Amino acid sequence: MESMMIYMPIAAALIGLIYMVVKKSWVMKQDAGDGKMKEISDHIYEGALAFLNAEYRLLAIFVVIVSIALSAVAYFVPTTHWLIVIAFIFGAIFSAFAGNMGMKIATKTNVRTTQAAKTSLPNALKVSFGGGTVMGLGVAGLAVLGLTLFFLGFFHFFMGGVWTNTMDMTIVLETLAGFSLGAESIALFARVGGGIYTKAADVGADLVGKVEAGIPEDDPRNPATIADNVGDNVGDVAGMGADLFGSYVATVLAAMVLGNYVIRDMGGNIADAFGGIGPILLPMAIAGVGIIISIIGTMLVKIKSNDAKESEVMSALNIGNWVSIVLVAITCYGLVIWMLPETMQMNFFGEGLLEISSMRVFYATLVGLVVGAVISSVTEYYTGLGKKPILKIVQQSSTGAGTNIIAGLATGMISTFPSVLLFAGAIWASYAFAGFYGVALAASAMMATTAMQLAIDAFGPISDNAGGIAEMSEQEPIVRERTDILDAVGNTTAATGKGFAIASAALTSLALFAAYVTFTGIDGINIFKAPVLAMLFVGGMVPVVFSALAMNAVGKAAMEMVEEVRRQFREIPGIMEGTGKPEYDKCVAISTEASLKEMMLPGLLTIGFPLVIAFVPMIFGMNNLAIAEMLGGYMAGVTVSGVLWAIFQNNAGGAWDNAKKSFEAGVLINGEMTYKGSEAHKAAVTGDTVGDPFKDTSGPSMNILIKLTCLIGLVIAPILGGHASEDINSNEPITVTENAAVKKVYVDFIITSDDFAKAVVSVTNVKNEEISTEELVISGTKEEVDAKVAQLKSESTQFKMDVTDSRPVDVK
Amino acid sequence: MESMMIYMPIAAALIGLIYMVVKKSWVMKQDAGDGKMKEISDHIYEGALAFLNAEYRLLAIFVVIVSIALSAVAYFVPTTHWLIVIAFIFGAIFSAFAGNMGMKIATKTNVRTTQAAKTSLPNALKVSFGGGTVMGLGVAGLAVLGLTLFFLGFFHFFMGGVWTNTMDMTIVLETLAGFSLGAESIALFARVGGGIYTKAADVGADLVGKVEAGIPEDDPRNPATIADNVGDNVGDVAGMGADLFGSYVATVLAAMVLGNYVIRDMGGNIADAFGGIGPILLPMAIAGVGIIISIIGTMLVKIKSNDAKESEVMSALNIGNWVSIVLVAITCYGLVIWMLPETMQMNFFGEGLLEISSMRVFYATLVGLVVGAVISSVTEYYTGLGKKPILKIVQQSSTGAGTNIIAGLATGMISTFPSVLLFAGAIWASYAFAGFYGVALAASAMMATTAMQLAIDAFGPISDNAGGIAEMSEQEPIVRERTDILDAVGNTTAATGKGFAIASAALTSLALFAAYVTFTGIDGINIFKAPVLAMLFVGGMVPVVFSALAMNAVGKAAMEMVEEVRRQFREIPGIMEGTGKPEYDKCVAISTEASLKEMMLPGLLTIGFPLVIAFVPMIFGMNNLAIAEMLGGYMAGVTVSGVLWAIFQNNAGGAWDNAKKSFEAGVLINGEMTYKGSEAHKAAVTGDTVGDPFKDTSGPSMNILIKLTCLIGLVIAPILGGHASEDINSNEPITVTENAAVKKVYVDFIITSDDFAKAVVSVTNVKNEEISTEELVISGTKEEVDAKVAQLKSESTQFKMDVTDSRPVDVK
Repeated sequence: MESMMIYMPIAAALIGLIYMVVKKSWVMKQDAGDGKMKEISDHIYEGALAFLNAEYRLLAIFVVIVSIALSAVAYFVPTTHWLIVIAFIFGAIFSAFAGNMGMKIATKTNVRTTQAAKTSLPNALKVSFGGGTVMGLGVAGLAVLGLTLFFLGFFHFFMGGVWTNTMDMTIVLETLAGFSLGAESIALFARVGGGIYTKAADVGADLVGKVEAGIPEDDPRNPATIADNVGDNVGDVAGMGADLFGSYVATVLAAMVLGNYVIRDMGGNIADAFGGIGPILLPMAIAGVGIIISIIGTMLVKIKSNDAKESEVMSALNIGNWVSIVLVAITCYGLVIWMLPETMQMNFFGEGLLEISSMRVFYATLVGLVVGAVISSVTEYYTGLGKKPILKIVQQSSTGAGTNIIAGLATGMISTFPSVLLFAGAIWASYAFAGFYGVALAASAMMATTAMQLAIDAFGPISDNAGGIAEMSEQEPIVRERTDILDAVGNTTAATGKGFAIASAALTSLALFAAYVTFTGIDGINIFKAPVLAMLFVGGMVPVVFSALAMNAVGKAAMEMVEEVRRQFREIPGIMEGTGKPEYDKCVAISTEASLKEMMLPGLLTIGFPLVIAFVPMIFGMNNLAIAEMLGGYMAGVTVSGVLWAIFQNNAGGAWDNAKKSFEAGVLINGEMTYKGSEAHKAAVTGDTVGDPFKDTSGPSMNILIKLTCLIGLVIAPILGGHASEDINSNEPITVTENAAVKKVYVDFIITSDDFAKAVVSVTNVKNEEISTEELVISGTKEEVDAKVAQLKSESTQFKMDVTDSRPVDVK
Repeated sequence: MESMMIYMPIAAALIGLIYMVVKKSWVMKQDAGDGKMKEISDHIYEGALAFLNAEYRLLAIFVVIVSIALSAVAYFVPTTHWLIVIAFIFGAIFSAFAGNMGMKIATKTNVRTTQAAKTSLPNALKVSFGGGTVMGLGVAGLAVLGLTLFFLGFFHFFMGGVWTNTMDMTIVLETLAGFSLGAESIALFARVGGGIYTKAADVGADLVGKVEAGIPEDDPRNPATIADNVGDNVGDVAGMGADLFGSYVATVLAAMVLGNYVIRDMGGNIADAFGGIGPILLPMAIAGVGIIISIIGTMLVKIKSNDAKESEVMSALNIGNWVSIVLVAITCYGLVIWMLPETMQMNFFGEGLLEISSMRVFYATLVGLVVGAVISSVTEYYTGLGKKPILKIVQQSSTGAGTNIIAGLATGMISTFPSVLLFAGAIWASYAFAGFYGVALAASAMMATTAMQLAIDAFGPISDNAGGIAEMSEQEPIVRERTDILDAVGNTTAATGKGFAIASAALTSLALFAAYVTFTGIDGINIFKAPVLAMLFVGGMVPVVFSALAMNAVGKAAMEMVEEVRRQFREIPGIMEGTGKPEYDKCVAISTEASLKEMMLPGLLTIGFPLVIAFVPMIFGMNNLAIAEMLGGYMAGVTVSGVLWAIFQNNAGGAWDNAKKSFEAGVLINGEMTYKGSEAHKAAVTGDTVGDPFKDTSGPSMNILIKLTCLIGLVIAPILGGHASEDINSNEPITVTENAAVKKVYVDFIITSDDFAKAVVSVTNVKNEEISTEELVISGTKEEVDAKVAQLKSESTQFKMDVTDSRPVDVK
């Protein structure tokens, strides 16, 4: 059975996808309501589809360009295999498909939720959460299926399906990184493009409709209202789907890469029942079981009472969520004990090889689960209705928009305190338990319930849309009240979901960062070198500028929308009386075009910067390992700053939103009950306008930015690490002689293919806890490297080792 | 003559102080106007003095507590000398005195500027800039005098006034760091306390006076108006004076520390005409000449025409500024060529010893001067009236406060792009020219004209006050118009001054960071170690939370002020008619108390975090060098994030301010001229309210935060680097034998005193470009270390070296 374990994640993914199909047909069988409702729903569906199609056409061009670039790299750089291009393309396609699928089911579920809300609240939850479940399982199933199939394929192609050595597996995983790169690239554009779309439409609709014309939200007389509802689907659904698809794949990949290094540290071979690749299979296995657990979790989400309030809906979701987290913990225990050797050797930088028991790996997964849970509570505290920070913003609204804004900004900024301490503690603890493999597995455990998280996240915008349809199709107030309950809960889950996303992105990026350092073969990232420090600064700046570009894009697109809505109000006769029909499609077109145009620059910034840092100094003949270290500094800068700005923006935006919402039920300011329409409320609305791009455009893009940056680094890694073919021609004498200070000589092939090989000869010094910098890199064709190693052996009688083996060999 | 060079900076400082006294008596001789003007001026003077006295009382307690802590450390930790306590106390006193003196002259100059403005604009500039000059020369003179005197004292105390070796000089400079620590601690509280004071009063006065009661700014009926004018003096004058005093001292100190390491890298001894300490004296010499140059620069600032506009006043300032920068460049060339050896050896981390010509050091100083100039232009672009970013914010104001805020935030964020690229380029270039010594000298050159910069900075708030006095004493409109011209120029110089301050802080922090790494003797800061990376995250978070605390403090204090002003309007009969007298002192008291209370928490955060990171793991028995590396990661995090947040906040705040100001002359929005009082203007006022704490409280505090953090690290450094006395008892065999891989053995005493010594034995490997990690730290009493080194020698026949020498000694 153990040897079949590699197929288990595929089976689990297929079960997830089958369950998804079943659930989908159930949702589609639900009543879609009357003609007007269907018409509105169709408008939204078509608008969303039109946007996605336009977006995918544009992204297809992008994929072609990147593929050509990758092919050229694969052709000229012997350490890169052309299969990475195929993996990249499929990663992009899978990611786009996941987003597209989610959007389709969401736009079909919204009207059915409205119809269900006519009967009862439990039914409305059942339908909307059903739609979310379809999306969640679809995304997670596709992610696990795609990643596992490609892994299997490459494992057979490069290694014949059996473990050979670390360097071969490195090539497998390096090529697999193309899949993740494809997925994450699409996610970036989907998130940013969708985020710009949704906020441009939202702000545009609100500013003219609500504020200037004084008509309610989602009023059918507002020309931008369809665009607004489309935005919920392309931003909050399709964008988020692509985002979590990318996260999921990147997390599992990073853990696999580090699992490969665990095997290397253990001597290059482990005798386990899983074909000797237990540590590599483990993260896939956790992901696979996570899908099954998510199915169980989604089944537990239900309410009975038709008079349920937000808190009861929230606890229904919490039950499902908590049960799945506990189940993941139990599963991790079983899988870790079963699949990993009882004790492993792991190389800790600066500390040498340490003995790590498999129980410590399990503890690392627990760290991940705890962080996932705690970050949600932290986020809820800073953004939740009725909590202290929100009440303070509400109070500060009484003295105007200025003080409301200051309070909201300060809340977002303060919220970085517990969040960052939590992340720092998690990094430290999971690393202390099981090194960077522990960090990666903490992220994997946290991400195991991605399907469940997505279901919880996606039901929010579905309910939001359902409310919009209820309003536009002029249903009884009770229908809107019911969807509003779901929508309110959805706002909270959206905020906590963002906390969860950034937590997992932080851990995943660190794991990718660790993989990068090992791939390139550099001796860590030392910020005491000025060029590395300079790049740390540059990296820190990129998330800030990225956020500004995204915000400006929203501003620009919203202004265009405002002009168009004003024009229609002015020019279409009878529009305010309901006799003239607004031109919805014009507004949809404006949002579509503006968001596609505006997503280019931030995307270029993200992809361009690491390429410039890697290749410009290379042209000037800078040492490749020095460049690799600089790029590492850049990656660290982007990660640290990106995490900070994500927390800041997400929480400030969420806090402003709920401060504004607080006025709906009335708030006590200076002893007086204050409601919607008051001056304080208007100030709170201004705060929410600022918060919108924060929380829905720039904030959630941060986690893709940091993951994509680290992935690009990982894909560039072999170019930087394997390019130094002049080493082979060096005239420097190479001598490794026995002496008291040298204890072990360690030969490892980082890359090997038909026309290229690279060996690293490291010398462990007498203290045994440090790897000496006396490290020799030999690269060139396989023959050249073999010859050089043979020469090494002949030069030194103490140099006894098997050159095809990456096991540490004792000198005498 | 060369041997007397050590006294030159003292002479220059005394010349500066004498010129200051002369200038001051000239200012005081000017007419202080009529009785009402004098009365108002006295109110401001007394309010400011009351605040400073209350602040200093509180800070005296702080100084006593820190002194006791430092004494305890000096007593228990053998590597720290008790004289650091004396240096700390004097640093604090000098800093407080500099701030106090600046505030006094400013509050005396304001009314004289008003009076001068009655006659002509050139006279008004002459008086206000004269006051600024007094302050600038006072601060710079005191800084150079204090630092040089203490250096001379310690040089004689520890070394008998002649060069002995690097380790003795390290103790001199380590003790001197106490002076800088004292200065920077006071600066932190002065900046934050003053910043809270000025904005609480400003926001409070505006919200009730301008917005609610509809009376103009500085109207004598507004009870908060005196507090507002006091705020300009305690925040923009006293706070800034203490800030730049601290920067100046820290910059010169950092360059001296790195100069000491240049001497070490050159073999521990250089034969120059400056007593063998040319590289250490150079930064002091540059500072000394800088004072004389600043005097020349200030003399050039004058205008002739009474009808001059802002641009002519600005170019008068620019002439003075540019001439002084060019003179500094020429001086640097002369001093560098004269004082430094023609070629030096400098140890570049990871690259080994390189030959550096003194011309390259000169190029590094040019880098500093260029950065100082360019960052001012960049800042002016993003915050200047009539520039594209400001026009965009103005346009976005037409759709309300929300879009105005988004545009302002985005402008601040985008402005990090050129600024950070500039800093990164400067770090890289100055390091490439002359290592970290080059980075430190770049900062020194940039800071050489501190006196001139301060004169330019201080004349702004003086003119602002002069305008206030004109309004309150009901002068002819022409008087206010003239002071308004000066005030407008002052706003621009305030923004560019902040850019300058953060640029110098960034370079200084890096130099301090480099000094820290060398002091502790760690092998760089490697962020591939998870605990170091975790601390990078934590460090990145601190400036964000610090800013939030400062902003919240302003919000809280402003709310109290609002309540008080409302109460007075309600309860004092005839106040609005001008027959009832407002209780100005109550408002002054509120600002004073609130700011003193609220500055505690940010201060605690800044000082507490590095102490917790250093000492808590120590209690748990963590390795000291590992802690030192973690603390280094923290310092890097604070620096990178602090620089980003400083640029973001300063520029966003400046941009909002000038966007609001644009409405005074009228702006073209959608083809219509729009003025003060329009809806768009109201939106711009809201933006300015948000920007106020950004640009005057949290933003400018960032540079003190990062410098203070690095200074605390530097003071802790010997504790971390010298505490490992268990090394001496280690049972590990220590052997350094001849082999092909070992080329040079390097013994260096990092610390030596009567009861403690520490030797680091490093081995340079065969490649010559790398220092091997085969590094041995021996610490304990001097006898123990001597014995161990003797043992080393006896164990290995190849180990030929003079243990009292830190010169690299060839093996065999």
